Amino acid sequence: MSKLGIGLMSGTSLDGIDAVLCRVNGTGFETELEVLHAYSVAYTDDEKQKIMALCDEHTARVDDITAMNFYLAEKFSEAVLQLIEQSDYSLTDIDFVSSHGQTIYHLPDEGSTKFQPKSTLQIGDISVISERTGLPVVGDFRTADMAAGGQGAPLVSFLDYVFFKDEKKSRALQNIGGIGNVTYLGRGDDQQLTSFDTGPGNMVIDEVVYRLSEKTLTYDKNGQWAAKGQENSQFVEELMDHEYFSRKPPKTTGREVFGKAYVDGVMKRAKELDLSADDLVASVTAWTAKTIAKSYKDFILSANKPLDEVIVSGGGGHNETLLRYLQEYLPDQRVTTIDEFGISSDAKEAAAFVLFGYHFLLGETNTISEFTNADHEVIMGKLSYTQPQAFEKVLSIRGS
Amino acid sequence: MSKLGIGLMSGTSLDGIDAVLCRVNGTGFETELEVLHAYSVAYTDDEKQKIMALCDEHTARVDDITAMNFYLAEKFSEAVLQLIEQSDYSLTDIDFVSSHGQTIYHLPDEGSTKFQPKSTLQIGDISVISERTGLPVVGDFRTADMAAGGQGAPLVSFLDYVFFKDEKKSRALQNIGGIGNVTYLGRGDDQQLTSFDTGPGNMVIDEVVYRLSEKTLTYDKNGQWAAKGQENSQFVEELMDHEYFSRKPPKTTGREVFGKAYVDGVMKRAKELDLSADDLVASVTAWTAKTIAKSYKDFILSANKPLDEVIVSGGGGHNETLLRYLQEYLPDQRVTTIDEFGISSDAKEAAAFVLFGYHFLLGETNTISEFTNADHEVIMGKLSYTQPQAFEKVLSIRGS
Repeated sequence: MSKLGIGLMSGTSLDGIDAVLCRVNGTGFETELEVLHAYSVAYTDDEKQKIMALCDEHTARVDDITAMNFYLAEKFSEAVLQLIEQSDYSLTDIDFVSSHGQTIYHLPDEGSTKFQPKSTLQIGDISVISERTGLPVVGDFRTADMAAGGQGAPLVSFLDYVFFKDEKKSRALQNIGGIGNVTYLGRGDDQQLTSFDTGPGNMVIDEVVYRLSEKTLTYDKNGQWAAKGQENSQFVEELMDHEYFSRKPPKTTGREVFGKAYVDGVMKRAKELDLSADDLVASVTAWTAKTIAKSYKDFILSANKPLDEVIVSGGGGHNETLLRYLQEYLPDQRVTTIDEFGISSDAKEAAAFVLFGYHFLLGETNTISEFTNADHEVIMGKLSYTQPQAFEKVLSIRGS
Repeated sequence: MSKLGIGLMSGTSLDGIDAVLCRVNGTGFETELEVLHAYSVAYTDDEKQKIMALCDEHTARVDDITAMNFYLAEKFSEAVLQLIEQSDYSLTDIDFVSSHGQTIYHLPDEGSTKFQPKSTLQIGDISVISERTGLPVVGDFRTADMAAGGQGAPLVSFLDYVFFKDEKKSRALQNIGGIGNVTYLGRGDDQQLTSFDTGPGNMVIDEVVYRLSEKTLTYDKNGQWAAKGQENSQFVEELMDHEYFSRKPPKTTGREVFGKAYVDGVMKRAKELDLSADDLVASVTAWTAKTIAKSYKDFILSANKPLDEVIVSGGGGHNETLLRYLQEYLPDQRVTTIDEFGISSDAKEAAAFVLFGYHFLLGETNTISEFTNADHEVIMGKLSYTQPQAFEKVLSIRGS
């Protein structure tokens, strides 16, 4: 029997919260999912600044982390209530909520002391969301994969596999959120699977635009600003020199690598090269596309794996200049967006969490270890139900 | 049918980890619990220093919090495995684990900005523990009570109520861990219930002993050092002046109030008064007892509530000098320890988490709102099961 789940996503780009209501049905790789309604709310400037401060080891305070774990959970709860209000459903129709939370730190590799195991931290307490909505809430997924030796990312590849593995076409599912990540799916029975973060997604573009616009713009809408400039090849090549791009997958990255400190360096070098604002935005946009294309060339095509289609999702799917550069750098592949397949670019990640939460509640593994490089597949997630009626919903999902 | 659960506790005193294996049976207030085996492991000095740094807003770093959330979970998992090794049971006999985690910050009151809701943060990721043990793990309890308007503490009062509510005797269940807290239970049908943190438990005594012994002692074993000195009444009275003691319950406190910075002041004042080391240890021990006794006088006895017995648990139950002072300050009550009732002083808190985890898995509320001042009772806790066999155990608990 089909169930109604709400997925919540808040990515490293700190745009805001995506909430999506889905109907979900079936089990394992035969699971079907239909997006019924989507709702997004942007973070206010002060919220964004506050969260960014939590992601930086020099500005994060334990009292702020403690408090924001609750504050963001209240925001996530409000997003659920708004989504419901706009939809044709009521809260009591919903079977479960599944929330990614907000990543504030991700340590994909062990450090040099015993006190630095690889680890990750997402906030937005699921018990707060359960108490506000009266629903069972699944969340905090990444830690289970890391406990099993994985990198805790990219998670969405599980959805890519379930829905986009194709008999005849080899595909790269490229998500461009704050960070860019790709899921590579071979054709038909070809089980060659790869998934890794390609590098920055919108993160560097957004921060450059924010600074150049004197804090009036938080992103380059449809890539209009980048379209006005011309990329500076020397600058783009210099930026390509970062060690992350030559490192072999599996690999993941985040704000700790391509955050504000990184952009400080970008701005400084752009000034030395005397780049205009337009050319700087064009250059970081071209560079972002190039990091993606080069990843494919070095780690997919050079290994003699075929690649027919590139399917872009995430906020970057709206950046037409970025897509144009990507097609230019990948002349032999068809570059398109996920909207073509009936899932909007913005809804994909939130919808993936509906899938993860559903599999968790059924007691089914919701990872593919090839993607995260884990020792084995696990049932990711944690479950909260603060009220007896929420517990009854959990029992009913299992009984159906 | 009875179930086997393992409780894990690591308190604010940072002594180490208490693990306890219990048989549990029944439902609601009729639940029965028997302690089968207990195991404790002390934190090493470097672990203790590392955790303390996380609890201080000036030294805590987000990368350390992220990493220690995993590191401590590994330690908790090792404690489970050691407990099992010493017991007559094997891992596959166990039905579930229930873990308090390590509190690193607790904000019982709202702050002045919207970004400071009341909140609490426990670390020691339950998915890591599930992955290491193959068992379902419940944990991270306090946030649900706070989401329902509670103070998120004291939780153990629920166990006190279930096991110590008596027809003929009114009782104060006094736990003396890092922090001291009391559960007051009226006689028989008298539903007068109160629960609050009395103030520091062993926290200040331990830190003073640590400094006076030049870091060679972490606590005053059996209160032997305090027994050698004489309390300085002027000093004790000055320490009683702290605003916490006059504040009316409900109230909770922690290391952020009575931690190192507080002890800096204690040491400075002791030097001005020219106290000997023996007299200083005796004085903070007498003061700790006095904070408990004064709490009873001001908030229980002065409200015309009867009090027959004081039952001490926690590490403070071993401090004979502390117990002597407490009896001296409460001449009309019988002061005893929980060991008299078949639960060792050290095992009580960990056993309480077996009870909370069990009720969570049955979908039953595991709080009493009078104790935490919540708007209503909730099912506290979050659940992780990273492997299908752990999920099967969850189903079997519900089916029994």
